[in-house]
Amino acid sequence: MRKIHVIGIGAGDPDQLTLQAVKALRSTDVFFLLDKGEVKADLTQLRRDMLAAHVPEGSYRVVEARDPERDRTAGGAAYSHAVGDWRSARADIYERLIAEELGEDECGAFLVWGDPSLYDSTLGILEEVLERGAVAFAYEVVPGISSVSALVARHRTGLNRVARPVQITTGRRLAEGFPGGVDDVVVMLDAHQTFRKYADQDIDIYWGAYLGTPDEILVSGPIAEAAPRIEQLRAEARERKGWIMDTYLLRRNPEDA
Amino acid sequence: MRKIHVIGIGAGDPDQLTLQAVKALRSTDVFFLLDKGEVKADLTQLRRDMLAAHVPEGSYRVVEARDPERDRTAGGAAYSHAVGDWRSARADIYERLIAEELGEDECGAFLVWGDPSLYDSTLGILEEVLERGAVAFAYEVVPGISSVSALVARHRTGLNRVARPVQITTGRRLAEGFPGGVDDVVVMLDAHQTFRKYADQDIDIYWGAYLGTPDEILVSGPIAEAAPRIEQLRAEARERKGWIMDTYLLRRNPEDA
Ligand SMILES: C[S@@+](CC[C@H](N)C(=O)[O-])C[C@H]1O[C@@H](n2cnc3c(N)ncnc32)[C@H](O)[C@@H]1O
Ligand SMILES: C[S@@+](CC[C@H](N)C(=O)[O-])C[C@H]1O[C@@H](n2cnc3c(N)ncnc32)[C@H](O)[C@@H]1O
Repeated sequence: MRKIHVIGIGAGDPDQLTLQAVKALRSTDVFFLLDKGEVKADLTQLRRDMLAAHVPEGSYRVVEARDPERDRTAGGAAYSHAVGDWRSARADIYERLIAEELGEDECGAFLVWGDPSLYDSTLGILEEVLERGAVAFAYEVVPGISSVSALVARHRTGLNRVARPVQITTGRRLAEGFPGGVDDVVVMLDAHQTFRKYADQDIDIYWGAYLGTPDEILVSGPIAEAAPRIEQLRAEARERKGWIMDTYLLRRNPEDA
Repeated sequence: MRKIHVIGIGAGDPDQLTLQAVKALRSTDVFFLLDKGEVKADLTQLRRDMLAAHVPEGSYRVVEARDPERDRTAGGAAYSHAVGDWRSARADIYERLIAEELGEDECGAFLVWGDPSLYDSTLGILEEVLERGAVAFAYEVVPGISSVSALVARHRTGLNRVARPVQITTGRRLAEGFPGGVDDVVVMLDAHQTFRKYADQDIDIYWGAYLGTPDEILVSGPIAEAAPRIEQLRAEARERKGWIMDTYLLRRNPEDA
């Protein structure tokens, strides 16, 4: 039976690999590296460097494939639909990779950014491939340090306050309003600095870009003060590097809710 | 200047340590192990085993201290108050440990269960000690694999569904009602199996106890079916081991909201 490891590799710092992830890397025959187009050479290189650092050369193969582009122009209901189409186009590719590139008794691996449980489609795609029934395999998930854990560790703060809840959401959702029932909100996948919408409220922001990498930038403070600084640093960094990955925690004064 | 590492050690599996955590362990002179009373010999032993496995013997000291008991009978507003008192009693102990047991140029460490950012008071206590101003130190946080990441990895599912939010909360909060604005909810610190309250709704539960340890138990399925099984397994395991640690994800069919 074919075996697949879905390995969380942390969000930028190669030392965020767990010992379990290193063991999983070492027991893998074939690594599938998907180049997302949107994903920049830097991130693919980090994966290659991890393999070089932890797995004896000659003991594994690397198969690269191109991930299909997603339609990023769609909004609203069309958005879910675009994500659905994209997922099934990816399922075609994953199915082919597993069927054609992995021997019957071999172990393959997908290296997932951060933790595979957060805003990542790998598990959903593998389930879809299994449901189609054309190729059988067993699979296992190795958890990783998410960009969320990395963010708050660098800011030396908690995700939640004592006995209180925290929500993890997207920029798109935050644009629709501050989530109800919580005062601590982590925002991912925000291309529009949606936090600016809340600059008139009593909210502290803990922002981080390129977390865990040599380019890491951290800013924290009341949104009203921090927002212009973030805007400027973000624009400069994006210009310099050509891409940006950022995440933030909004911590609202409960009295201001 | 004294230095402190706050090191996330994962939620039960010693292989969940990150390479960064191992490096931090190796550069530590003094480990502070706090026995919480409620925390069982097993968990303190896991920390000692980690040190034995990763740090050369003779290169470090271990200082054990007793964590004060928390008043667990308090509810409502008294609850936050009890947590506050408890935290400041702990700050007394941490302050003394750092001032008396750590040399001026030495590095101390607290080994935090799971990820230090989730329902853990270590960072809050260190901030309180710093504010008091009696002892100065620099500190750094090493993120860890939380029981939340471990839970969903073992169930091979995501925390969030595509483009949707997820909330992390406590059993106490869940007892007050299903959180608004989300259909995916992770529950921690639940001594009362509060999920049973929602057994009549179209909700899947992904439950795990003793995650990452040889005693790990996993159950998933529609709550109505899974609840009685969880209740029985939980009672048996608790009886056998004398304590239990469990966490779960509730995934509601959005149409049922
Ligand atoms: C598709 S999601 C994947 C998240 C990933 N699975 C994780 O656990 O972090 C990508 C989003 O994660 C966040 N992100 C990932 N890596 C990051 C990093 N190194 N620094 C800041 N944000 C990061 C950004 O919000 C980005 O839009
Ligand atoms: C005080 S909180 C600490 C959480 C920890 N910082 C983390 O990241 O997992 C303790 C709660 O975490 C959960 N927990 C911790 N370790 C666990 C494990 N190995 N299996 C299941 N639940 C666990 C339980 O819900 C427990 O009540």
